[in-house]
Amino acid sequence: MSDQEKKTGRERGEEWWSTEIIEMRPGMIRLRGYDIRDLIGRISFPATIWLMLRGELPSDEQAELLGIALGAAVDHGPQAPSIAIARMAATCGVGINSAMASAINVLGDVHGGAGEQALAFFGDIAAAMDGGRSLEEAVRARLEKFFAEEKGYVPGLGHRFHPIDPRAPRLLELVREFAARGVIDGRFAAIADAVEAEVARLKGKKIPLNIDGATAVIYGELGFPPPLTRGLFVLSRSVGILAHAWEQSQQPDRNKGPLPREWLWAYKGQPKRSLD
Amino acid sequence: MSDQEKKTGRERGEEWWSTEIIEMRPGMIRLRGYDIRDLIGRISFPATIWLMLRGELPSDEQAELLGIALGAAVDHGPQAPSIAIARMAATCGVGINSAMASAINVLGDVHGGAGEQALAFFGDIAAAMDGGRSLEEAVRARLEKFFAEEKGYVPGLGHRFHPIDPRAPRLLELVREFAARGVIDGRFAAIADAVEAEVARLKGKKIPLNIDGATAVIYGELGFPPPLTRGLFVLSRSVGILAHAWEQSQQPDRNKGPLPREWLWAYKGQPKRSLD
Amino acid sequence: MSDQEKKTGRERGEEWWSTEIIEMRPGMIRLRGYDIRDLIGRISFPATIWLMLRGELPSDEQAELLGIALGAAVDHGPQAPSIAIARMAATCGVGINSAMASAINVLGDVHGGAGEQALAFFGDIAAAMDGGRSLEEAVRARLEKFFAEEKGYVPGLGHRFHPIDPRAPRLLELVREFAARGVIDGRFAAIADAVEAEVARLKGKKIPLNIDGATAVIYGELGFPPPLTRGLFVLSRSVGILAHAWEQSQQPDRNKGPLPREWLWAYKGQPKRSLD
Amino acid sequence: MSDQEKKTGRERGEEWWSTEIIEMRPGMIRLRGYDIRDLIGRISFPATIWLMLRGELPSDEQAELLGIALGAAVDHGPQAPSIAIARMAATCGVGINSAMASAINVLGDVHGGAGEQALAFFGDIAAAMDGGRSLEEAVRARLEKFFAEEKGYVPGLGHRFHPIDPRAPRLLELVREFAARGVIDGRFAAIADAVEAEVARLKGKKIPLNIDGATAVIYGELGFPPPLTRGLFVLSRSVGILAHAWEQSQQPDRNKGPLPREWLWAYKGQPKRSLD
Repeated sequence: MSDQEKKTGRERGEEWWSTEIIEMRPGMIRLRGYDIRDLIGRISFPATIWLMLRGELPSDEQAELLGIALGAAVDHGPQAPSIAIARMAATCGVGINSAMASAINVLGDVHGGAGEQALAFFGDIAAAMDGGRSLEEAVRARLEKFFAEEKGYVPGLGHRFHPIDPRAPRLLELVREFAARGVIDGRFAAIADAVEAEVARLKGKKIPLNIDGATAVIYGELGFPPPLTRGLFVLSRSVGILAHAWEQSQQPDRNKGPLPREWLWAYKGQPKRSLD
Repeated sequence: MSDQEKKTGRERGEEWWSTEIIEMRPGMIRLRGYDIRDLIGRISFPATIWLMLRGELPSDEQAELLGIALGAAVDHGPQAPSIAIARMAATCGVGINSAMASAINVLGDVHGGAGEQALAFFGDIAAAMDGGRSLEEAVRARLEKFFAEEKGYVPGLGHRFHPIDPRAPRLLELVREFAARGVIDGRFAAIADAVEAEVARLKGKKIPLNIDGATAVIYGELGFPPPLTRGLFVLSRSVGILAHAWEQSQQPDRNKGPLPREWLWAYKGQPKRSLD
Repeated sequence: MSDQEKKTGRERGEEWWSTEIIEMRPGMIRLRGYDIRDLIGRISFPATIWLMLRGELPSDEQAELLGIALGAAVDHGPQAPSIAIARMAATCGVGINSAMASAINVLGDVHGGAGEQALAFFGDIAAAMDGGRSLEEAVRARLEKFFAEEKGYVPGLGHRFHPIDPRAPRLLELVREFAARGVIDGRFAAIADAVEAEVARLKGKKIPLNIDGATAVIYGELGFPPPLTRGLFVLSRSVGILAHAWEQSQQPDRNKGPLPREWLWAYKGQPKRSLD
Repeated sequence: MSDQEKKTGRERGEEWWSTEIIEMRPGMIRLRGYDIRDLIGRISFPATIWLMLRGELPSDEQAELLGIALGAAVDHGPQAPSIAIARMAATCGVGINSAMASAINVLGDVHGGAGEQALAFFGDIAAAMDGGRSLEEAVRARLEKFFAEEKGYVPGLGHRFHPIDPRAPRLLELVREFAARGVIDGRFAAIADAVEAEVARLKGKKIPLNIDGATAVIYGELGFPPPLTRGLFVLSRSVGILAHAWEQSQQPDRNKGPLPREWLWAYKGQPKRSLD
């Protein structure tokens, strides 16, 4: 078969959907080169996630740390728009998959993207250190740029609800343990600490690391690129989304709105008027 | 080229995605056989919707009546889960298309499916009449079956909020006008009236037609099959969903939850306990 | 009741969901101040869309032009990801609303956002003209900035498939007709023409206006802000999405994949390897 | 404060969103009664999933088996509509969360619901056994009902692509190991075996258990209700959906359609016609 025929035939169609992730033939499935029958029962669920996303198997300790980060962010309660959406959707007559989809869909730049922004921020500092700067210099320069150009909230710091987000110090404690055991090198933890300290110096008060910052430290230590941080957050928060959709679906509500049924909304628009 | 070769080549791929809706070549687009340049500016938006869904052009009056039904159901306020979802999503850092998608997604059996159920119900009665039964017999038999086997709310009747849904009588009035002009034959309006009357007789009180019942009458008169009724409702409600997503996006809220920011939810679960 | 009580009670909850779009009480629905019973049957579907988004009623001619733009972009065939997604989703056992949602969701910056970018681009030029520049100067300055800083495709020009997008010249012809009748002032059409001409001069070949550019001209003439352009595109393309989901749902396919069932994808990853 | 005031005030709003899953106050988060700081680093990710969905902690072995089932179904390649949708969405300019949402959304009755149906089917048999029937009688009666009334594919058996789904025998092997260790009682595995044997007897050929049947066995052994089976499948398949969305996003494609760019679709509709 000539190259030209190849390009206009079935092989061209099959190339259009090429992937390095999965190989399949009737009776055979391989993930990243490994027979699925070998993987099943021998690697943990977090290790499977790592293999799928990174292409290679993690060590047991790496997989354990990934699982810790995934477990920490599963839920933040029904005041989070994603959780509220899952619960409302579950009362509208759609499958649990669709209730989850409507919810996951809103984990965007504002609701789910903080971890991605935090890891990108920490990564800029790491890159400056690779270029020869000290930790302190790199942190100071990045924050200067932030306050001059980007403004707003420093990614990964502060929480509108928690004075101290209880998940963050516990996660950082574990990061230090894993660093002490040599699983990771602790560089991103040091960067996060230095950012927190420098912001405290500049602002005159401590704005502590939040869950997004803490998980960004872990994902950075483990070598994940920033955009995957948001994907991992989706995997994590999906658990809470499912739990709430499920709990809601066990109750008799139909078309659940945001406020109690007997309440309305305040109307602030045009008074009554007529067409003519 | 032999048939076998054909089936393994590009033509097989192109057949896999065959459609009767749109034909395209570089510089040429035809919808249902009509050149897009002929359609643009010469048929109304509701006529375009009809052509796309039905394959043929409607009369001007049919398109007008379709437009009336589409315009009637655009919004039911922020207590509707779809509208609330659109508004919350708009504060989470996703595009307006994604805010709309999360919202439209929940227009399922309970939230958006009532029109489909109503038209199927009315259609069963129409089919019994085609089989020789009188309107009264057909209505009585279908309701008997409903109360014996299906139970719950008669599709298209009653509203949890409106004693009389203000949209329904106005729509039925227009249906009768269009029937008087010979655009439609008025059969589904007669069926809906008879269902309403028989339910009033059985229950001892009037449970009036709602917006889903009224639009089902129109879609039935115009010859749409029941499942498209839900699709048309999505097109209609998308307008309100967009309006609310847009209004919300003009405001500074971030991660808008269902309750005021300073409120929490009531926790009803296990009291504090420890792992060991 | 004191202000403080007010803020912690039901009124605070109702304020949280305040809107200027819709007012409702049992038996009463008003859109933008107009009783829904007055609107039904008296304004067209595009006029309803305008009222919901803008807060005021359009003239009949403005509504007509809006309807023309909405009708022009309803479909671009099953090779468009949105349409393909709608068709695949329709075979997976979800409602037609969810098939539509998965599809609409992908009308993002790349797939649906070109109109928004085009109108923002044209709007920059209009703003420069308001500041005293001539059309030619404003166009040249904006394109210089574009080629120096932003690069890529000039928003609203060129099409990867159509040498000339057949919808664009027809839409521009209609824009000129409406401008001649005084419905619009024709300013955005003039800007689009000038951008097209200047790009042709710079590149040495004409890169004609596409559908996104042409509808951006109309939406700009009618006074819509750029982000609503994407929302209007969603309303428009939803029609084709629904038509394709519906056509697909009439066929027996289950779990329709992108390629014919008997084809696979090309695997380009790691060869077979073992865990140990 | 009287009960009536309570019902119209903030407490009523907070009750509207009540949950047994999560308790929160500033600086404090508890999941199912456990302080989040105690859970982090001490229970595995699958154990967290279990706790969130079931309300109680699993044993280590139960969590391990849950993780095995979750890891087994992560991917089935780009010919699965969910995976194809994720990849196409990733090229349309939406966030990775939205690409995942469009994909997860289609894991409906046909694409993701087979496990739910299989577990409901096996559960019917288990219930009949609880009522005093032998395994063989219960299986025979349920299959008789199936072939008489429901028809189609026996839930959990057979695969259109794999003669033997390689994941199923491996999972059943592990189920037997866990049963031998007393973690589970092995009842659903016995039911699945008996269903497979009886279908082979009736049809004259073996139609082997597939991945949906095998994971349904595990979820049933672990005590999950059938609808959660679909939710767990969503958590599992989300991993593959993320991996493919991510791989695709590393490539330069824009608006990726289902077929190679230079191919079209076959048009099977009306030939060219004119409006008049």
